[in-house]
Amino acid sequence: MAQHRHRVVIVGGGFGGLAAAKALAGSDAEVVVIDRRNHHLFQPLLYQVATAALSPSEIAWPIRHLLRRQANARVLMATVTGIDTGSRAVLLEDGSREPYDSLILATGAQHAYFGHDEWEAYAPGLKTLEDAIAIRRKLLLALEAAERESDPARRRSLLTFAIIGAGPTGVEMAGAIVELGRASLKGQFHTLAPEDLRVVLIEGADRVLLNFDPALSAYTLHSLREMGVEVELDQKVTAIDADGVGFGDKRLGTSTIIWAAGVAASPVARWLGVEGDRAGRIRVAPDLSVPGHPEIHVIGDAASIVDDDGRPVPGVAPAAKQQGKHVARVIRRRLAGDTGALPFHYAHAGDLATIGKRSAVIDFGRVKLHGWLAWWVWGFAHIYFLVETRTRIFITLSWLWIYLTGQRSARLITHGDATSDKPLEEVDED
Amino acid sequence: MAQHRHRVVIVGGGFGGLAAAKALAGSDAEVVVIDRRNHHLFQPLLYQVATAALSPSEIAWPIRHLLRRQANARVLMATVTGIDTGSRAVLLEDGSREPYDSLILATGAQHAYFGHDEWEAYAPGLKTLEDAIAIRRKLLLALEAAERESDPARRRSLLTFAIIGAGPTGVEMAGAIVELGRASLKGQFHTLAPEDLRVVLIEGADRVLLNFDPALSAYTLHSLREMGVEVELDQKVTAIDADGVGFGDKRLGTSTIIWAAGVAASPVARWLGVEGDRAGRIRVAPDLSVPGHPEIHVIGDAASIVDDDGRPVPGVAPAAKQQGKHVARVIRRRLAGDTGALPFHYAHAGDLATIGKRSAVIDFGRVKLHGWLAWWVWGFAHIYFLVETRTRIFITLSWLWIYLTGQRSARLITHGDATSDKPLEEVDED
Repeated sequence: MAQHRHRVVIVGGGFGGLAAAKALAGSDAEVVVIDRRNHHLFQPLLYQVATAALSPSEIAWPIRHLLRRQANARVLMATVTGIDTGSRAVLLEDGSREPYDSLILATGAQHAYFGHDEWEAYAPGLKTLEDAIAIRRKLLLALEAAERESDPARRRSLLTFAIIGAGPTGVEMAGAIVELGRASLKGQFHTLAPEDLRVVLIEGADRVLLNFDPALSAYTLHSLREMGVEVELDQKVTAIDADGVGFGDKRLGTSTIIWAAGVAASPVARWLGVEGDRAGRIRVAPDLSVPGHPEIHVIGDAASIVDDDGRPVPGVAPAAKQQGKHVARVIRRRLAGDTGALPFHYAHAGDLATIGKRSAVIDFGRVKLHGWLAWWVWGFAHIYFLVETRTRIFITLSWLWIYLTGQRSARLITHGDATSDKPLEEVDED
Repeated sequence: MAQHRHRVVIVGGGFGGLAAAKALAGSDAEVVVIDRRNHHLFQPLLYQVATAALSPSEIAWPIRHLLRRQANARVLMATVTGIDTGSRAVLLEDGSREPYDSLILATGAQHAYFGHDEWEAYAPGLKTLEDAIAIRRKLLLALEAAERESDPARRRSLLTFAIIGAGPTGVEMAGAIVELGRASLKGQFHTLAPEDLRVVLIEGADRVLLNFDPALSAYTLHSLREMGVEVELDQKVTAIDADGVGFGDKRLGTSTIIWAAGVAASPVARWLGVEGDRAGRIRVAPDLSVPGHPEIHVIGDAASIVDDDGRPVPGVAPAAKQQGKHVARVIRRRLAGDTGALPFHYAHAGDLATIGKRSAVIDFGRVKLHGWLAWWVWGFAHIYFLVETRTRIFITLSWLWIYLTGQRSARLITHGDATSDKPLEEVDED
């Protein structure tokens, strides 16, 4: 007699979803991970792909590969279009349904433009591998175009890079763009010099790294300015278009704007037919379940919950991982017949951000670090948290190479598909 | 008094163009390299990007970076639209003109579909980095779709891969796809087994590797069949569409077809207003100049010339490099006042092709090798010819890793730009 196995469907193979799947290894449940992409992404290093320090394959791995040794897990590359909470099934784009007994929604967040969706076309954000490749192309193409530009104003605009939002991503991008630009401009261009480069970091609050200790914010601001980054604090962005960005009563002419300001949860609220918070996140119960649906959990950037001190749990990788593991524990207990409440407690792991390739700030709560020592701690921490031995070796070598030679290996400009829309006449090389 | 420096414009930063630029280092000439892309590509390893063994950045380098130490060289990323041979200037897409005293056209070749351009949409070729990334996506997506497919015929079609043309590229792709497919299918998919994979190599001639010694062709055929590749010889392709490929009186249902059959020169003939040969190549004089235009040279895949034995010089990297160096020598002599004829002599470097990751065939003319020894010679030769120390280290490690673990690192499916056309509703992960 075939017994029904408890079926856990996990939507999203990011930090939260993957942690949940792994924590269910060896359990009686059947686990299905659904993701629109085939890869898990190590998002904390995504800015290094966008600035040509690492290649895409150094920070992403097929989810299938990561779960290959877990006998009770299946991976489905598919796009979710909705959830039928009544009959308990996830609806897929191709019309098929994946039934579940427990559902874990780990769908993450997307850039949000504060009601100005038209800004996205000019100021791409950095969430996916495609985003990073597109930003890398934009940065490198601006330098190539500047080399050929004779109009001084247009040239200045091409050599000006604006980053909106001075959280960790914005700070890291600003430092990395200065280094990429300086290294590229040194000797490799005929008409450009390193001094021509301008990087402007625009922040709405009165300090950078708002979530960090104010002393670390001050140190970071000082370091950025020493590197040559122009930091504009207390500046609300009012306009973004093809020619530049407006903030306060200023206007900056630039052809490259990067959005590192706001995020909103993906469409989980719509799928569940419940109301999300201001950023679209689901307000979950203490055990991370959706109120009224003990069989549905929301974790990571898609969930809204406070920690034991009443502060919102931040949208960072350690929080998503802890929540993934917690939900796996809740499900395992339920399978064992114990339906008692198991509230989630967030253990703050610390905040980290690099400032270029020689300095970083780390806020562990009691312990705070800055400068070169923080940079080494940051580097080792990231290598430690990478999911694969091969990646650890290759990223260590990539960083060592850049550290010693200053040469960034991944300075490639690749375009979209070249298979269809490229007439023979346009080809002028290889 | 500013003296006019002799200006050499090189169109194309492939093997030929780069060799010419480098061979002009230290000369009195001013060198300008124009390429539509920012990178030089190590094409012999492109099939390894298409089959997820190497990342794009391991086989491509910014042309600027490669020429950074050459004081008399400039690099321009621009698209050429024509040549004004009368006033001696290269015309660029943005309307500007690059004047030249000597012109070197090293624009390479493109896939050619024997008058069936409509086949390109279904059977992409492998010439650029974008081609390789698109083919990698196609291969990996077919496996993902097969995992979810319940209709047996459709499933069989998704698991069947056809390669058209059994030259070195076709043979290498066939071997690599078998290995990629088998490694991926082993344990990582729920509904697929390694035996489900079908790789079919279709060739119009009566043997594979037509340019090699017949004994090596026979060895290669035997090795491919032992690996499980179905080789169809003496088969002319008659139809290609979304559902499969027709050849002879057979029809093969497949959703993945790769074109490795024909190439044609890029639009040099049109630019020059001369008639090209059947494959669009320019019939050049013995010194590689265009008849009637001693100041214009055509090299590499865009040139048609015979060797000392009257056989056509093949479209391979060593031939392009030798020609690039030769033209640089002609120009240097001319600068020194010597306009005497300097005919090009092709030194045949040998033909190499790998069959999977354990075997290869090498035809050096007198010396012929096959099997595992040939594979090691092939590996060392390619690492030796790579242009950069960093790349040598990383590719050696990548190959070693695959050799020891069987894991291919670059199994990423990335889509086109994600910055514009991705509505929030479609996002179901990270």
